[in-house]
Amino acid sequence: MKKSLSDIDFAKGDGLVPVIVQDVNTKDVLTLAYANKESLELTKKTGNSWFWSRSRNKLWMKGEESGNVQKVRQILVDCDSDAIIYLVEPTGPACHTGEKVCFHNKLD
Amino acid sequence: MKKSLSDIDFAKGDGLVPVIVQDVNTKDVLTLAYANKESLELTKKTGNSWFWSRSRNKLWMKGEESGNVQKVRQILVDCDSDAIIYLVEPTGPACHTGEKVCFHNKLD
Repeated sequence: MKKSLSDIDFAKGDGLVPVIVQDVNTKDVLTLAYANKESLELTKKTGNSWFWSRSRNKLWMKGEESGNVQKVRQILVDCDSDAIIYLVEPTGPACHTGEKVCFHNKLD
Repeated sequence: MKKSLSDIDFAKGDGLVPVIVQDVNTKDVLTLAYANKESLELTKKTGNSWFWSRSRNKLWMKGEESGNVQKVRQILVDCDSDAIIYLVEPTGPACHTGEKVCFHNKLD
């Protein structure tokens, strides 16, 4: 099914939806981040992954400092329109620690 | 790296962390849901996927009504300990709509 930006339920998360960033080729889950409406619009417009930083309270583009941009090949929306997947082709590691993915820890 | 339950940052999300449910074999992302500390404990203890329902305000086990339980093979934690992956072997569809995954919509 097709959904549009106006279908997304931003209200439930106080203006934000969680975004799962998944490698379109390996299917590795790289990161979980958050998007507001503007970051989704920027992602659609530019083809790079944009988010809303909860800690810095600002829009950010993945790779804006590191150069490790993510090319967004598809955006998926879940059944109740309150969560998103960016399917991306990453450039370099996704994690600020230098690891390829942010989920590099096992729960004991 | 190993992390333990006490490392998880529940405070940032008012007691909840987002949980990405990923098929351990196909690597499909099935669902995004939420967990509080108790649901993580139940998941670890029982081996089935437990969550906190924000809409019904209660603990729930995936499949408790449908029978489509998810066997959790591994729990991963991200770099800043505020997001989780359950790697699962699903029984039946993950989505309440009957679709295999909840992310069955493309953003136009």
